[in-house]
Amino acid sequence: MTQATGAAVEAPSHVVQVGLLGMGVVGAGVARVLTERAAAVSSHTGGAVRLHKVLVRDAAKARGVALPEGTVTTQSASVLDDPAISVIIELMGGDEPAHSYIRRALAAGKHVITANKEVIARHGPDLMALAREHGVVLRYEAAVGGGIPLIVPFHESLPANEIASVRAIINGTTNYILTRMSREGLDLAEALASAQELGYAEADPTNDIEGIDAAYKLSILASLAFHTRVAPDAVYREGITKLTARDFRYAAELGYAIKLLAIGKRNGGSIEARVHPAFVPLDRILAKVDGVFNAVEVEGDLTGEVMFYGRGAGERPTTSAVVADVIELVRAISSGVAGREQPPLRSDMPVLPMEAVRTRYYVRMTVTDKPGVLAGIAGVLGEAHISIASVVQKEVDERAGTAEIVLMTHLAQEAGMRSALAGLASVPGVGEIGSMVRVEG
Amino acid sequence: MTQATGAAVEAPSHVVQVGLLGMGVVGAGVARVLTERAAAVSSHTGGAVRLHKVLVRDAAKARGVALPEGTVTTQSASVLDDPAISVIIELMGGDEPAHSYIRRALAAGKHVITANKEVIARHGPDLMALAREHGVVLRYEAAVGGGIPLIVPFHESLPANEIASVRAIINGTTNYILTRMSREGLDLAEALASAQELGYAEADPTNDIEGIDAAYKLSILASLAFHTRVAPDAVYREGITKLTARDFRYAAELGYAIKLLAIGKRNGGSIEARVHPAFVPLDRILAKVDGVFNAVEVEGDLTGEVMFYGRGAGERPTTSAVVADVIELVRAISSGVAGREQPPLRSDMPVLPMEAVRTRYYVRMTVTDKPGVLAGIAGVLGEAHISIASVVQKEVDERAGTAEIVLMTHLAQEAGMRSALAGLASVPGVGEIGSMVRVEG
Repeated sequence: MTQATGAAVEAPSHVVQVGLLGMGVVGAGVARVLTERAAAVSSHTGGAVRLHKVLVRDAAKARGVALPEGTVTTQSASVLDDPAISVIIELMGGDEPAHSYIRRALAAGKHVITANKEVIARHGPDLMALAREHGVVLRYEAAVGGGIPLIVPFHESLPANEIASVRAIINGTTNYILTRMSREGLDLAEALASAQELGYAEADPTNDIEGIDAAYKLSILASLAFHTRVAPDAVYREGITKLTARDFRYAAELGYAIKLLAIGKRNGGSIEARVHPAFVPLDRILAKVDGVFNAVEVEGDLTGEVMFYGRGAGERPTTSAVVADVIELVRAISSGVAGREQPPLRSDMPVLPMEAVRTRYYVRMTVTDKPGVLAGIAGVLGEAHISIASVVQKEVDERAGTAEIVLMTHLAQEAGMRSALAGLASVPGVGEIGSMVRVEG
Repeated sequence: MTQATGAAVEAPSHVVQVGLLGMGVVGAGVARVLTERAAAVSSHTGGAVRLHKVLVRDAAKARGVALPEGTVTTQSASVLDDPAISVIIELMGGDEPAHSYIRRALAAGKHVITANKEVIARHGPDLMALAREHGVVLRYEAAVGGGIPLIVPFHESLPANEIASVRAIINGTTNYILTRMSREGLDLAEALASAQELGYAEADPTNDIEGIDAAYKLSILASLAFHTRVAPDAVYREGITKLTARDFRYAAELGYAIKLLAIGKRNGGSIEARVHPAFVPLDRILAKVDGVFNAVEVEGDLTGEVMFYGRGAGERPTTSAVVADVIELVRAISSGVAGREQPPLRSDMPVLPMEAVRTRYYVRMTVTDKPGVLAGIAGVLGEAHISIASVVQKEVDERAGTAEIVLMTHLAQEAGMRSALAGLASVPGVGEIGSMVRVEG
């Protein structure tokens, strides 16, 4: 941060001692910024931040951050039970022991900042209640969307709105994979291998490609948007593994991109919460969010559509969000108001079962290239009250005597669609149902 | 706002009396939301908001908002000098008398919320100083970007970052016009007429199409990003009036969109601050921001590129931003910290003269279709130290014996480009210089 030219830096009125749990890539980044930009942090907050203790697994490991002798420890109690520490930054990740450490810190009257999406998605409302009880604050800007400002704008910029929906691309790994599949006609395996080579996907990519990571983040976003608890297990989840290069080609021909969307929607007195691949019309800005970038589109009744876009992961973006939380917290501590401002969730709305959700559908299937097959398909769909918007015959395999057809439906209920897909299997001439993708927006 | 199911609404600890200046479209929207969503506002803030007085020009005019007898007045003193009022919301627009009213309110120890870009751009730093002096707050979320959260994220989400640049599409009228020109091949006059018909452009469109509105907003954004004062008069400004339908076609062929950009950039110890049409590469998300939508892209050294997108104007989006300011302010008043948190600008950087800015350039010109003309052009550019990246001959007018050529340069200094353009006029065979557009990003 550029130092003020000629502006006097006031002596900090408060020195806040911080304990850091975890010194991985992001932990080291946060330690570095707090150390190297101490003057800037201080000018923003009117207080000073000192890294007092850092919990690591291996004390001998070099991390490229110069810390005073005695700062690093492998004993969690030396951090959590140190009465000098008033703020804990948790950057270990995973549910346990991170969750227990956060509980213990809050119960001891320490403020907590975390980037842990799993803990916040699973235990956020309970931890908030615990924080309120002890007059302290729990902040988690980095837990959703990495460096994209989301929590603060939701709380402070959109409070006058009734939020109708949130549609988000919140997993950079899958968005990178889908972008490569779309642009280069790659299959999933090829695009995934390339993402792994570049360090965008892990050796075991399950959490990303099955939508587990996105479901945690949606759980947090939905709570923010609708002021109600949406447990991660209540989020309907479908990964990207069934998509093929052909689906992207057909989507483009029909005027759509395919994105893994995390969708939260107000639907009467219920909430829709679902993560699945979706057809997004190409004229929507969300369809243009490519590569590792993330974006969260919010529809408010006053603002209309707003979108927040940026890098959802990575050392530096995540560090930016964690340090922003530190700065806001120290500002509140210096003003004597930390812990006074965390309203409880205001409502208690159920999550709508996926079977009751209504969307439009894209279905790709192989059929024998003979008259009458389409009539059979239309009959099954009609019985399930699904009306067809268009059917297009794509590739014909003359040797096998089969053709691939692509079918778009009008709005239909998921339950009906599922029974129709089951029914199609027994229609003479219908071969493989290649894929079924919901259309959003 | 949906009322809490089962959650108790606490009795507000503070009742904040508000005076509203101006009851146009936005003023009526704000009055309506504050009245109709009083319970929601209260649940967010722990305080209650009462519209105590409203200053209007014509007391008889109906506005569709039910206000208690005696609320509406045509006398500014009845609002500004009422000791019961602690918050003034200024929605009159324009420099005077809005500016004087805001000064008077701040000096009387009243907090002020405004949507007035002109006043904030011209007098923001002075008004902030006045607010600090009197221990009150001046908030202006609606002054830039309408319903797009910007001020709060800048202050609270990005403080750990050194901001390298801000690139913004912050005038919906011109973005609508440019989108129509680009998509339908319309000329400016046709697109403007259509925008006027739809109510997106005013009868006198000067403020929009000459970039005056965008320059005010850039002045505010640059102050936020670089913590330095950028006076609106110091912003270089060029409107969209020289663009033709052909420029959009050529831009697309070269892989660019044309957008009216407001650009703030850190350049050594100086700031670039300029509003002009720009070629934006089609793979940038900013190039996809179409129609009346606005977007602000910020490049931070930690977050990387983030973008905020939404509706930059209109009754409801602007109301959303004003009410967000009201909620934050009442929250601060209830906590007893309002007025403690407004840091002064930290630096004092000059605005770089436009002549010293370096960009790439697109130039479209008519030449006689004869050998040697290009050599003359290349000679003039070479003398000005401008190297040519590409020259393409576009349309040939065989009867006139002329051809249109499009030239793209490498990075060059504005001063050199200007002298080259002047020099080209005297090159034999060079006719009209149709347009010169800077390339950004």
